[in-house]
Amino acid sequence: MQRDHGGNLDVAQARFGGDDWIDLSTGINRQPWPVPPLSEVAWRCLPTARAESRLIRVAADWYGCRREQLLPVAGASAAIQLLPRILCLGRAAVLAPSYNEHAASLGAAGWQVRAAPGIEEMAGADLAVVVNPNNPDGREWSPARLMALAATVGRLVVDESFADPRPDLSLARDLPGNAVVLRSFGKFWGLAGLRLGFIIAQPDLLAQLRDAAGPWSVNGPALEIAAAAMADLPWADQTVTYHSEASLRLDHVAQKAGWQPVGGTHLFRLYDTPDAPAAQERLARARIWSRRFPYSDRWLRLGIPGTRTEWDRLLMALTP
Amino acid sequence: MQRDHGGNLDVAQARFGGDDWIDLSTGINRQPWPVPPLSEVAWRCLPTARAESRLIRVAADWYGCRREQLLPVAGASAAIQLLPRILCLGRAAVLAPSYNEHAASLGAAGWQVRAAPGIEEMAGADLAVVVNPNNPDGREWSPARLMALAATVGRLVVDESFADPRPDLSLARDLPGNAVVLRSFGKFWGLAGLRLGFIIAQPDLLAQLRDAAGPWSVNGPALEIAAAAMADLPWADQTVTYHSEASLRLDHVAQKAGWQPVGGTHLFRLYDTPDAPAAQERLARARIWSRRFPYSDRWLRLGIPGTRTEWDRLLMALTP
Repeated sequence: MQRDHGGNLDVAQARFGGDDWIDLSTGINRQPWPVPPLSEVAWRCLPTARAESRLIRVAADWYGCRREQLLPVAGASAAIQLLPRILCLGRAAVLAPSYNEHAASLGAAGWQVRAAPGIEEMAGADLAVVVNPNNPDGREWSPARLMALAATVGRLVVDESFADPRPDLSLARDLPGNAVVLRSFGKFWGLAGLRLGFIIAQPDLLAQLRDAAGPWSVNGPALEIAAAAMADLPWADQTVTYHSEASLRLDHVAQKAGWQPVGGTHLFRLYDTPDAPAAQERLARARIWSRRFPYSDRWLRLGIPGTRTEWDRLLMALTP
Repeated sequence: MQRDHGGNLDVAQARFGGDDWIDLSTGINRQPWPVPPLSEVAWRCLPTARAESRLIRVAADWYGCRREQLLPVAGASAAIQLLPRILCLGRAAVLAPSYNEHAASLGAAGWQVRAAPGIEEMAGADLAVVVNPNNPDGREWSPARLMALAATVGRLVVDESFADPRPDLSLARDLPGNAVVLRSFGKFWGLAGLRLGFIIAQPDLLAQLRDAAGPWSVNGPALEIAAAAMADLPWADQTVTYHSEASLRLDHVAQKAGWQPVGGTHLFRLYDTPDAPAAQERLARARIWSRRFPYSDRWLRLGIPGTRTEWDRLLMALTP
């Protein structure tokens, strides 16, 4: 089954032509952490346990979790594929609407999947899946509310792919025993091509996941780059500040174009438009790619422009 | 369970000290394909379907298979982890001794695993796993013999991780319907840090594997680098020529040190030594790392030195 995702810029290019697109169809930071020249070893050699330990130290500091609770994997996506195949099958309640890969992956692995419009509808499930803050609508839940939820379900998976600018939302610092937190490296640091994410869970479950992922599941450049990027706290501060302001600015621009903000995160915003296909096409004619959803004719999601040039083109496209 | 592998150079460094090690503990080419500067897109963006198609075109030419039979994955390792969880469980016959991850991964997924000393002992198995040429002893089987084997088992998996210099051995050009071929990119092109491999199989099985791997399972730099590397036929010719000669030269050097060649491939050689722990330590004192096997006190495997400096140090270490 072909699942619907953002990041399909090549489809847009084929349909509308042109090369110099601004891809706002994802929530990937458009101002990536500046990658320095890599050690030759990162390319040539099998990733070492030492390189992985170095990354785990830095990442555990960033997430505020214990090192033995942290496993690097080849993207949050890899975690989403692995988990349903490792846990004992049962009935899963998955937040909806949300990132569609959770329900799809659980279903493919044989889980009985139920869409839950809110976390209140999840009690009693063998597995509850929440995205916090949620993609695409930006709904968010405090750690206290998620801890209460964890007490009513067999296991709780919280996908915190967009939580880097919001450590106050994270369950990683005080992880309930039956909770699993998923984190994405590529979005906040703007390096999605690297394929890196993390699973935060109790060590026994982590050991099973590590075995199932197999040896050397994360590439060498990712281990090296992320260990440096996640220790660069001044860059992170600056990135959070920029996106705090820029996300409000994007809402303002959208409202002037007649689109109502539904919600969002620091890294993307969701708008209610009178006609989403028309809105997407209007932007596409200016070679700006946006994200639509198969279940809505009105919703359009936009990532945050990264440079003055990108803002200018967006403003031009939305000025009548 | 911690499985035993080569590539654990950090263990050797911790034990013997020193930084300037020559790692001959793997079969990874020590003269890697020279990686040019990458496009910024490779790091920043989610890997596109276009980048994947480009790689599939080039790789299908290299392997001589049909494009629709080829799936890039995050290393041959990822394939070895995925397959046992996708196929229906049953009784597997796995060549032994061989690369130990096959039996381990099948066992972890719930297969009943039997070690087969040769392919003659595999008939009737639901799944037969052969490494061709074999690691570590270099045994090899012609496509005709493997086709005959395929007719007697439910499914045949052939791990051709070391077959790049030996296209005559590959089953990829004329794939039996129930066969799956695994290929590794990192070894021949010397870029194991990238984590790239391929599965060659019938399109229906490939579609299941693609779903299980999830979206964006291969990182962007790997897609870009491999598409260029696998099209560089002059480099490949030169690499095969060098390793043909160098592997014979290594056998010669080893024999003079009293080690008998057992077999091997273009990318590694296996020796029967009077005392493998002593042989490994002798090399380690010269900061050359080699590979031992938990099941043998005599076998030592060596990768092929890549430069004059590496040869010189090896010769010094082995001269009485």
